[in-house]
Amino acid sequence: MAKNLTTREEDYSKWYNELVIKADLAENSGVRGCMVIKPYGFAIWEMMQKELDRMFKETGHVNAYFPLFIPKSYFSKEASHVDGFAKECAVVTHYRLKNAEDGSGIVVDEDAKLEEELIVRPTSETIIWDTYRKWVQSYRDLPLLINQWANVVRWEMRTRLFLRTTEFLWQEGHTAHATKKEAIAEAEQMMHVYADFVENFMAVPVIKGVKTESERFAGALETYCIEALMQDGKALQAGTSHFLGQNFAKAFDVKFATKEGSQEYVWATSWGVSTRLMGALIMTHSDDNGLVLPPNLAPDQVVIVPIYRNEEQLEAVSEVANSIISDLRVKGIRVKFDNRDTHKPGWKFNEYELKGVPVRIAIGPKDIEKGTVELARRDTFEKIFIEKDKVVSKIETLLEEIQENLLSKALAHRASHTTEVDTYEEFKKVIKEKGGFVSAHWDGTKETEERIKNETKATIRCIPLDANTSSGSCMVTGKPSERRVLFAKAY
Amino acid sequence: MAKNLTTREEDYSKWYNELVIKADLAENSGVRGCMVIKPYGFAIWEMMQKELDRMFKETGHVNAYFPLFIPKSYFSKEASHVDGFAKECAVVTHYRLKNAEDGSGIVVDEDAKLEEELIVRPTSETIIWDTYRKWVQSYRDLPLLINQWANVVRWEMRTRLFLRTTEFLWQEGHTAHATKKEAIAEAEQMMHVYADFVENFMAVPVIKGVKTESERFAGALETYCIEALMQDGKALQAGTSHFLGQNFAKAFDVKFATKEGSQEYVWATSWGVSTRLMGALIMTHSDDNGLVLPPNLAPDQVVIVPIYRNEEQLEAVSEVANSIISDLRVKGIRVKFDNRDTHKPGWKFNEYELKGVPVRIAIGPKDIEKGTVELARRDTFEKIFIEKDKVVSKIETLLEEIQENLLSKALAHRASHTTEVDTYEEFKKVIKEKGGFVSAHWDGTKETEERIKNETKATIRCIPLDANTSSGSCMVTGKPSERRVLFAKAY
Repeated sequence: MAKNLTTREEDYSKWYNELVIKADLAENSGVRGCMVIKPYGFAIWEMMQKELDRMFKETGHVNAYFPLFIPKSYFSKEASHVDGFAKECAVVTHYRLKNAEDGSGIVVDEDAKLEEELIVRPTSETIIWDTYRKWVQSYRDLPLLINQWANVVRWEMRTRLFLRTTEFLWQEGHTAHATKKEAIAEAEQMMHVYADFVENFMAVPVIKGVKTESERFAGALETYCIEALMQDGKALQAGTSHFLGQNFAKAFDVKFATKEGSQEYVWATSWGVSTRLMGALIMTHSDDNGLVLPPNLAPDQVVIVPIYRNEEQLEAVSEVANSIISDLRVKGIRVKFDNRDTHKPGWKFNEYELKGVPVRIAIGPKDIEKGTVELARRDTFEKIFIEKDKVVSKIETLLEEIQENLLSKALAHRASHTTEVDTYEEFKKVIKEKGGFVSAHWDGTKETEERIKNETKATIRCIPLDANTSSGSCMVTGKPSERRVLFAKAY
Repeated sequence: MAKNLTTREEDYSKWYNELVIKADLAENSGVRGCMVIKPYGFAIWEMMQKELDRMFKETGHVNAYFPLFIPKSYFSKEASHVDGFAKECAVVTHYRLKNAEDGSGIVVDEDAKLEEELIVRPTSETIIWDTYRKWVQSYRDLPLLINQWANVVRWEMRTRLFLRTTEFLWQEGHTAHATKKEAIAEAEQMMHVYADFVENFMAVPVIKGVKTESERFAGALETYCIEALMQDGKALQAGTSHFLGQNFAKAFDVKFATKEGSQEYVWATSWGVSTRLMGALIMTHSDDNGLVLPPNLAPDQVVIVPIYRNEEQLEAVSEVANSIISDLRVKGIRVKFDNRDTHKPGWKFNEYELKGVPVRIAIGPKDIEKGTVELARRDTFEKIFIEKDKVVSKIETLLEEIQENLLSKALAHRASHTTEVDTYEEFKKVIKEKGGFVSAHWDGTKETEERIKNETKATIRCIPLDANTSSGSCMVTGKPSERRVLFAKAY
């Protein structure tokens, strides 16, 4: 059953790359660093989008769409923002091609040079706040609670499918508020919404926290984040929500008249998750046989594979299959019947294991005789023979069990890979030999954070919100520390 | 009730621009030719996307995502394609900005010049067919039935909100087939899917047909289209579906092994509709009071405005409103309760007229006494008082009636603005004085088509599929013609 996948033990990184390609999730394109999201991978992303979009709307947000291009001058208006993004952006300088005069092919038409260069958005704060200036005059116009689903581009030098690509898909929420308190509450709310989605749909447990100053978003006063732990002991930032203070309002002159008639700058947040979540989903649950999908996000929750030697048997098996399918669909369960005659059952079993379909039903002539079918779980490989009348209720239960089991396993993995340490020696040993989250005291300075990063490649993933707040002393400098923070090597 | 809108009579074009902005649909951004789609406009686009996506999936298509950027060399591989798009494309030449050495600000970093320029996709045939080469080996891999929802960029010199913008949103289907027959059937099917959507959801009647050679998509052998007629007598191309033959398969070397073992090039189609449909929707139904939305695409199908002088009245009115709201929601009807105390009922009536909400319910103290409510139709301005127990069933009927009425009105308008002519004199007169579709005989040559266009600004919108196929002679040259074609000035 090896599917010709490199095992995680052999080479985790290679296993991941092979799995993404072989399970038909994504592949590299002819454009440096840009991926093609294949139909099966995109179907999972669509499931994610649908749930997130529902959650955003239930918390009062609406969608809109802002331009792909950002004039260079806008980009420069918020100082830390331009520092954060200028080094990795795609720049449009011309608006026309032409036939080369020497007949050598198509070249850029130098007569069509833009007066001002346009940046392909790496994130949309600047173009959105330039727009909000026109939308906000009075406290009556606030809050603005707007989200956008979009593609963004960051010119990454080293890319990996889903985890880090030059172009990626994401959603970016951008909200405007009358008060600081309300903006902070919004940023915190969206962190909780993300955590809810990631834990309950992706079955990936996360730690909620805030970033240290040096890990914050370029332009934010506070970055809230959710951090997940992959099977190889590396952390992955699964979503961020930023309290932006009045930085962008000041840069783009967005003021409002208060109830009392004074003019004040607006308070801002932004928050986003991206196709990077696909990487987190894949790396948290999958095994050496391929993808493992949580039922809540599986495009096909159940697949039915018929087993037959002749037309007559196929007919009998199909009759049972079709009756199960219609009963499952009534319950809202997503089921696929793979009755292709171009592939053998064994090939199909392998295929759906590789693609992570949570439950497989096999029905053959012997099952027809006995009035049973065979159910197989993708997560545990457990097989059950069950009377066909009980299939639907069993599958309902199974899908819930699988969803819970995946979360429990991931929680157990995280628990066994979270280590509390008190000395820097111990810290270095754990980071090097075991990996995972390491909880330790830190003196709160950039210098110490930087030293630890340089010496161990571990970064502070977050200052957890529910941290053990007992004080102690920094493992490196011995200076006082109010609380433990969470370190890890990260994607 | 003039809403300070310019009337259609006064200046149709100005009326359109004002309406788009005042109804909160879209506005111009700080980026030349790029629009911001505002939340209310985007909510309508989302309704469109949802229905179209469902229709695509029901006809066997899946979604995927391909890169935003296309290397210049790909772009040049299909000759007529590059001719069609090279003159209006955004070109990425650099991947980094830096601080100017003279301290004058942020500038393009000339050390970060791309070896090969990237084009921001104006359409994705080239990048997709470069990918399909890897996906297609055997007849078993066909057909590929893939759609993508994406943003595209065409550097338009004269832009108008929704109708023609530098960046726009669209979907583009790209399919690959084993036979010519199958590809043609696919291209025709998608034209019918588009017509079904535009007529039954947008309530915009369309003529199905094929384009003349000079109006075809760059790289297509046949372009199927649906053409709508706006209130000002100008036509609008609402969707196109292209049979691409083997042009892209040959340009990108996409071959497959047939059942018999020979190697053949794949047959292709592509098809798309865009945010331009928003323009068609707005211009077909709206009036001098603002937007008129067909119920099937209205984000809010019903709005309830409470009328009250004090808290006690508001409470009584709200009780009735809330009971109606929950009954409507059970029926799947989208209803909004505008109980803001910052605006008066009269202001709200104007606002929802401007925004085209199909049905308005007003409830005041007198209604409570009588046990009635007031219903007002946006399309006819008709008002009805009705017992509150009958509201829900009445609204169900009303929404259907409004949907039908909008389509009937548009059909009647088209019928009264479609003229059959036999002489070029008559043709010029009708095009100049009355506008609309003009059905006439044409000799089938580019030269005549070009001459008519130059002299009258009217183009052949399509050769209708259900055309009157009685033969005649060309109104310009007198040469024989097999069938009438449809002319109009167009957006």
